[in-house]
Amino acid sequence: MNKDPAKKYFNCTPAERAAFEAGIKLGSVYHQFVGTPLNMNNVDALEKAIEESLKVQPFVEDATVKIDRNRIRKGRGLYKYLTLHGDMLDVKIKVKYEDYVAVCRLKYIEEMDYPLMFVEEIRRV
Amino acid sequence: MNKDPAKKYFNCTPAERAAFEAGIKLGSVYHQFVGTPLNMNNVDALEKAIEESLKVQPFVEDATVKIDRNRIRKGRGLYKYLTLHGDMLDVKIKVKYEDYVAVCRLKYIEEMDYPLMFVEEIRRV
Amino acid sequence: MNKDPAKKYFNCTPAERAAFEAGIKLGSVYHQFVGTPLNMNNVDALEKAIEESLKVQPFVEDATVKIDRNRIRKGRGLYKYLTLHGDMLDVKIKVKYEDYVAVCRLKYIEEMDYPLMFVEEIRRV
Amino acid sequence: MNKDPAKKYFNCTPAERAAFEAGIKLGSVYHQFVGTPLNMNNVDALEKAIEESLKVQPFVEDATVKIDRNRIRKGRGLYKYLTLHGDMLDVKIKVKYEDYVAVCRLKYIEEMDYPLMFVEEIRRV
Repeated sequence: MNKDPAKKYFNCTPAERAAFEAGIKLGSVYHQFVGTPLNMNNVDALEKAIEESLKVQPFVEDATVKIDRNRIRKGRGLYKYLTLHGDMLDVKIKVKYEDYVAVCRLKYIEEMDYPLMFVEEIRRV
Repeated sequence: MNKDPAKKYFNCTPAERAAFEAGIKLGSVYHQFVGTPLNMNNVDALEKAIEESLKVQPFVEDATVKIDRNRIRKGRGLYKYLTLHGDMLDVKIKVKYEDYVAVCRLKYIEEMDYPLMFVEEIRRV
Repeated sequence: MNKDPAKKYFNCTPAERAAFEAGIKLGSVYHQFVGTPLNMNNVDALEKAIEESLKVQPFVEDATVKIDRNRIRKGRGLYKYLTLHGDMLDVKIKVKYEDYVAVCRLKYIEEMDYPLMFVEEIRRV
Repeated sequence: MNKDPAKKYFNCTPAERAAFEAGIKLGSVYHQFVGTPLNMNNVDALEKAIEESLKVQPFVEDATVKIDRNRIRKGRGLYKYLTLHGDMLDVKIKVKYEDYVAVCRLKYIEEMDYPLMFVEEIRRV
């Protein structure tokens, strides 16, 4: 994407913009897909769909999504499935805006007992 | 699934149960996935993920999901993607409860301008 | 609602239709709202919004929604909130189709460790 | 919130962090609530629930949510309701991280025909 048709609406630096765009994408994963029915039979398809849904969004250069299979194995109940919890997700995205790249993540942090969205790095490229 | 651990909670016939279970599954598709970012690059992955998320749910024997590619082509905006609308979905599921099968559908009905969920058939097998 | 514009698309009895419509509505609650940020400050507003979102849907005569406040109190983490899980919901709806009423429920069943959607009663009125 | 338990996971400036947090919250609104059944009877309750779900999230100082009633009036179909589209939303949030405030917005931009999430202002306070 060479040109940003929305640029005039923004009052911030390119680095802040990269961080903002990355936040949107991580928020979208959690709130779109948490609750999806899940077991070992569809985990691959769901991972791939989440990944691809990230890659079609503006400024996303790369995305990887992992769903914790140990939690699926432990969590299946009488009906042999569960639903996706935020704690099971490990999502990494790379967002590029102009000459800044933000590498951000959604990952369950054990010491916080919380699925944290955080900025691993913002750098000029 | 040979045995239903929840049977005692239900006061209805097996055919009504099949209809109820099918309704749940169609409601889940619409309200889980509408809003997902979408273009021609991820439509295959999203279709497959929705289909597989149906098949892991109790009593579902089969499911097919189609997303209308013509609407994707027409709807892409400046950022080259759109988000999934209920009107784009054509979902068919077959739910079996005891000796009854319900074949149900979510499909955009042009004369109603509405994404209708309906029962195509309930039969004893 | 006196007339159903979609009647010709259905091949089932009025009682089965009532069960199907109730299933759709319970599926919609779970998959629309699970994942919503939640603590004691917004639980009243969220309950009310879910209830009202049920009541605007076709054939719904009544709906009540309760979110388990004990689970909210126990579940708050470092950031003083959590997100809605299906296990916290107790939803009761009354759906009427022609001369049949279906009373259905979404409720966490402890012995199943599962948020069960079930048909409490279908009766002719 | 005086202390941030997650600070050590972040590699960015406070201003970038404020932008990132605001992005998460706007992404959460869109992907959590788009698809919710809606008409004039529940629009007030839904606006309030979305607003309150923003205010319980970390670092949010204020939030206002408006749903376009003109689009509800025009969009109601045979069943007298529709579902929430991103285009109907006007959301404004104020996020504070350390001594930076980000004022951000989700708003339908007519010339783009797109529900844009943008940064109105990032300032030191």
